[in-house]
Amino acid sequence: MLIVHFAPNSRAGRIIWLLEELGLPYEVNKMRFHPEDLKSETHRARHPLGRVPVLEDDGKLIWESGAIVEYILECHEKADLKPDKRDPSFPAYLQWFHYCEGMVMPPVNTIVVQTVLLSPDRRDETALSQAKKLLTRALEPVNRELSGRDYLIGNFSAADIMLGHACFMSNRLGCVPEEMSNLKRYVDNISSRPAFDLAINMQ
Amino acid sequence: MLIVHFAPNSRAGRIIWLLEELGLPYEVNKMRFHPEDLKSETHRARHPLGRVPVLEDDGKLIWESGAIVEYILECHEKADLKPDKRDPSFPAYLQWFHYCEGMVMPPVNTIVVQTVLLSPDRRDETALSQAKKLLTRALEPVNRELSGRDYLIGNFSAADIMLGHACFMSNRLGCVPEEMSNLKRYVDNISSRPAFDLAINMQ
Repeated sequence: MLIVHFAPNSRAGRIIWLLEELGLPYEVNKMRFHPEDLKSETHRARHPLGRVPVLEDDGKLIWESGAIVEYILECHEKADLKPDKRDPSFPAYLQWFHYCEGMVMPPVNTIVVQTVLLSPDRRDETALSQAKKLLTRALEPVNRELSGRDYLIGNFSAADIMLGHACFMSNRLGCVPEEMSNLKRYVDNISSRPAFDLAINMQ
Repeated sequence: MLIVHFAPNSRAGRIIWLLEELGLPYEVNKMRFHPEDLKSETHRARHPLGRVPVLEDDGKLIWESGAIVEYILECHEKADLKPDKRDPSFPAYLQWFHYCEGMVMPPVNTIVVQTVLLSPDRRDETALSQAKKLLTRALEPVNRELSGRDYLIGNFSAADIMLGHACFMSNRLGCVPEEMSNLKRYVDNISSRPAFDLAINMQ
């Protein structure tokens, strides 16, 4: 049985979303997004920095949402959210999958730190506004790619689980301007998926 | 023929390193790490944000070093730097591959921005010292993993091309303390590989 070590409002939602899309059975260890849970000795034994998600599969532990998504797609037979390497959409699939943590999440992290995690007296307006600018710029190519498409490579794929989740978070942080209409529509498309809805609302 | 759009001191070195390790033929379009080259109209036609690496394969363009590494490993027959999904090292391979951009590169980017890219009057000491602390903390699990090992999963793999490159850069930025002796040894192991040496010194 797969066990997802989970906290709300984190990348762990990506793993729940994937497992729900695939209809695979799993258990969830629900923690609060709070140091008492995430930095506990128990959880640090799973991930020394107290991060989520952690996937447990038959005693094996694996961190990093991108790695966990790849692992599930490779090792669990029902996994079909990745195009074949001979498919013309394969390079774009890989590109947008990695664009998530490579380009979009670094400024998202900074924005979350500067608006939620730091106490108001320690926040830095310059860092915040730079990160917002950077994020909007990083989203422009995604907005263009989505012209005339429901999902990143046409059909729904695991690239949407990674980058779509990041786009949803960016939108919630107020960093998707109205003129990015393809991206707004994309966030709506994602939000209308029952598996996403369950994952994003899990507490 | 594969074409690597390249600039020195960037993630493009990872692609040169991989191709050299695999002995695959390729061409390089050498640009300077300078807006005149990277933000030129020609290069923005390849990557709208003017980033490197970009791989060109038979007219197809693909961005993001992690995506390019995966693409080359999947689509080019000589590629054997990834364990089989049934191999016990497969989860660790994926984890460290993704740990590179997920945990290590975000503070590396901040440090490079705050020490090299910004003019001295725009630099922010607080942001710099936070990023240095974060980077050293992110490297601790890597240092532990390397205890008694030459490479991340034992044998050399593409996880080393990603995370090893990031560790090399972290060390060059002065963020690998002497007490991380496994990591120091790992950087030496990587540096002694002729393919790495060629890639890191390419101008």
